Amino acid sequence: MGWGDLGVYGEPSRETPNLDRMAAEGMLFPNFYSANPLCSPSRAALLTGRLPIRNGFYTTNAHARNAYTPQEIVGGIPDSEQLLPELLKKAGYVSKIIGKWHLGHRPQFHPLKHGFDEWFGSPNCHFGPYDNKARPNIPVYRDWEMVGSFAPEPVRLTPGVSHLFKEALDFIKRQAQRHPFFLYWAVDATHAPVYASKPFLGTSQRGRYGDAVREIDDSVGKMLELLHDLHVADNTFVFFTSDNGAALISAPEQAGSNGPFLCGKQTTFEGGMREPALAWWPGHIAAGQVSHQLGSIMDLFTTSLALAGLTPPRDRAIDGLNLLPALLQGRLMDRPVFYYRGDTLMATTLGQHKAHFWTWTNSWENFRQGIDFCPGQNVSGVTTHSLEDHTKLPLIFHLGRDPGERFPLSFASAEYQEALSRITSVVQQHQEALVPGQPQLNVCNWAVMNWAPPGCEKLGKCLTPPESIPKKCLWSH
Amino acid sequence: MGWGDLGVYGEPSRETPNLDRMAAEGMLFPNFYSANPLCSPSRAALLTGRLPIRNGFYTTNAHARNAYTPQEIVGGIPDSEQLLPELLKKAGYVSKIIGKWHLGHRPQFHPLKHGFDEWFGSPNCHFGPYDNKARPNIPVYRDWEMVGSFAPEPVRLTPGVSHLFKEALDFIKRQAQRHPFFLYWAVDATHAPVYASKPFLGTSQRGRYGDAVREIDDSVGKMLELLHDLHVADNTFVFFTSDNGAALISAPEQAGSNGPFLCGKQTTFEGGMREPALAWWPGHIAAGQVSHQLGSIMDLFTTSLALAGLTPPRDRAIDGLNLLPALLQGRLMDRPVFYYRGDTLMATTLGQHKAHFWTWTNSWENFRQGIDFCPGQNVSGVTTHSLEDHTKLPLIFHLGRDPGERFPLSFASAEYQEALSRITSVVQQHQEALVPGQPQLNVCNWAVMNWAPPGCEKLGKCLTPPESIPKKCLWSH
Repeated sequence: MGWGDLGVYGEPSRETPNLDRMAAEGMLFPNFYSANPLCSPSRAALLTGRLPIRNGFYTTNAHARNAYTPQEIVGGIPDSEQLLPELLKKAGYVSKIIGKWHLGHRPQFHPLKHGFDEWFGSPNCHFGPYDNKARPNIPVYRDWEMVGSFAPEPVRLTPGVSHLFKEALDFIKRQAQRHPFFLYWAVDATHAPVYASKPFLGTSQRGRYGDAVREIDDSVGKMLELLHDLHVADNTFVFFTSDNGAALISAPEQAGSNGPFLCGKQTTFEGGMREPALAWWPGHIAAGQVSHQLGSIMDLFTTSLALAGLTPPRDRAIDGLNLLPALLQGRLMDRPVFYYRGDTLMATTLGQHKAHFWTWTNSWENFRQGIDFCPGQNVSGVTTHSLEDHTKLPLIFHLGRDPGERFPLSFASAEYQEALSRITSVVQQHQEALVPGQPQLNVCNWAVMNWAPPGCEKLGKCLTPPESIPKKCLWSH
Repeated sequence: MGWGDLGVYGEPSRETPNLDRMAAEGMLFPNFYSANPLCSPSRAALLTGRLPIRNGFYTTNAHARNAYTPQEIVGGIPDSEQLLPELLKKAGYVSKIIGKWHLGHRPQFHPLKHGFDEWFGSPNCHFGPYDNKARPNIPVYRDWEMVGSFAPEPVRLTPGVSHLFKEALDFIKRQAQRHPFFLYWAVDATHAPVYASKPFLGTSQRGRYGDAVREIDDSVGKMLELLHDLHVADNTFVFFTSDNGAALISAPEQAGSNGPFLCGKQTTFEGGMREPALAWWPGHIAAGQVSHQLGSIMDLFTTSLALAGLTPPRDRAIDGLNLLPALLQGRLMDRPVFYYRGDTLMATTLGQHKAHFWTWTNSWENFRQGIDFCPGQNVSGVTTHSLEDHTKLPLIFHLGRDPGERFPLSFASAEYQEALSRITSVVQQHQEALVPGQPQLNVCNWAVMNWAPPGCEKLGKCLTPPESIPKKCLWSH
């Protein structure tokens, strides 16, 4: 989902009354970022509080390449990483993930081995049919076992969000009166192929993507309502955000909006990583607030721990901030935002200034094949189709005056010099202290795909894996 | 001002708390349009309820050219046009214009000759110093006479909005307890050179343009407060909008944001004509509503008359709709939006579909000189630099799925055919009935400039006009 997809963020069709109300009752962050322009690394960062370069969700197969966890990936979330649900256990929390996991699908990466108590969903994107003998499609799990796959059609129209939603209601109802709970509602309906349940199909002015947004909006609204009905609203912290910007490559039918920002998913421009972000906690977070805190999806890790009275592990670098001072007292904390692709720091924002050390959208070869992450946008020297090295003289934008990253500051200006010196010092500090994790997204192997997930026997859905041939994964963007 | 300049329309810095509150207390229109991508024609349309092609605010000097009323213009608002304040007189209204008039500056075009009872402001854009002997700058009038000019500096920093604001408060206070009143608060602070009063300078995250927006926001907030204090809020209809999209040519320092829309001022893409639009009338317009009515600045003419119990003149075509059914009952009325440049119908929107019959940003020659109305945006075959004739096969966009006008519908699709047939029929009807007014913006003459406005003697500011040499005005875009 993109920054510009909610009414409260300026989507012209204004079809998100529930999320807009959530913002009106809580706090809206206009300057909130994912940890990566792609899903898996961003989700790994959410659950570890650490940049993908630290938690291993990156590749070194090529320079500045995005990578994720397709079915043939060998790696996944390392055991050495401590995930939010693991840590929350210490405070008695029961945790459930509903929807997309995407931190590896081999047995050792199973969410229930990493702190979650329950799972309903799928290891990769996206809920697919499981009937392809040449390439197994993606199973749906309940806890330890495959329970099937969702839809018989290549584009799943019927269940999807409504199932994920019912699972959420059930879990909330069960837990609200018992243990404290952590629900990670990882809905994937706005990822191509986008989908919505029947009551929402064709109801949006924005096409099927809008149908998906409307259904998510409706589900969130009903979850908040349930929290009120259960009298736990004032005791439940709810945060809504996305793992990367709208995938403009799927536009117009299957892509959302990044509002006024440049490009989208896959890129380290604002459209790729600036996200909608709403915090809601009646009686604690005052209604109708806007926080200009530079926020990160990784902050949800640290903030959630703080809410549970816990502190993050001290034996490792944690990138997430505790946002409670911003949420409860309106404070602003100075902090950088790092924009990575793989092991390459592409850009850094500090205050209002963003410095691009490298620019790239995708290769000319890909671009000529119609892969376009910036359709209709072309900022000379900025939305480049070759990897441009600006490390000696970064392109710097003022994001307040120029949120669309169209007008680099003049190298000769005092403003440029001042911003560069501030950012350089923060980047040096970051890089000197950085201990990269073991890269998890380098090796692919068809043998590790979902040929025979646990439970497949009962369903008669086991396939025979092919010979194991580990290969370097090919990451083209 | 552009569609994307208010927080409630998604401006990321969110610096318009008063206008955002006005929206929260009233009705927001995401699909509201100016009548032209340039100021004078749009303002003429606001006050006459008629398209510029009807009221004469266009040029036939060249094909598809924007035109306005610079100092050397000979034409202006014709006596045959009936302006809103003229008509409101019949219902006892006292009218004042504060700020920019821009419907001609020669004696016969004076606002007090066209129905306004009071004027404080300037005939052209913008309040300028009056000390240029080669080319007189723009005087400020109080009613019939020049009272000076605002600032001694080329970019006027000190008075500006704060003067216009005080004038508004004074007028409202005076009138509120006496006659019904119509105030046209025509502030120009967001037009380059943008300006703000001292208390606002440097206070925005968006640079000086943002300072101007903040001051306007603050002024509007205080006017609404005054209406409450005077106990006339429930008896006063307030509407906030703009005369054209943000002028991206002045970006980044002096231009606003058109949100997710394509290009800006001067163009007939959405960025040039879709506008912020807020209606406020406590006790009548319910709070927190969004209307998807296709609205036009010309509707304010007809709506205002309806509010005063009047009907528009019956002896001429009126393009403005009465919006009261939308405002008070949430009704939606089917209506086209016409996008003109000069006498050329460039595009038409009907429902969600927009058909471009012609596309043009500006000439290659201008573009190469750095005049860019679409910086960073380049949609192949759409943001053209030659006048492209699509009349036989218009480019059609679905504005719900593709508000940024990046993906023309396939000519072969059923959706294209259906939209084309609906739009063609409406356009034919429009064109068959159209009686163009006498074009007012064809002739320029340096002798008509503000050399010796009434009142100049008292100020010792009279200049001698040069010889009268009428010429065709040159309109390059």
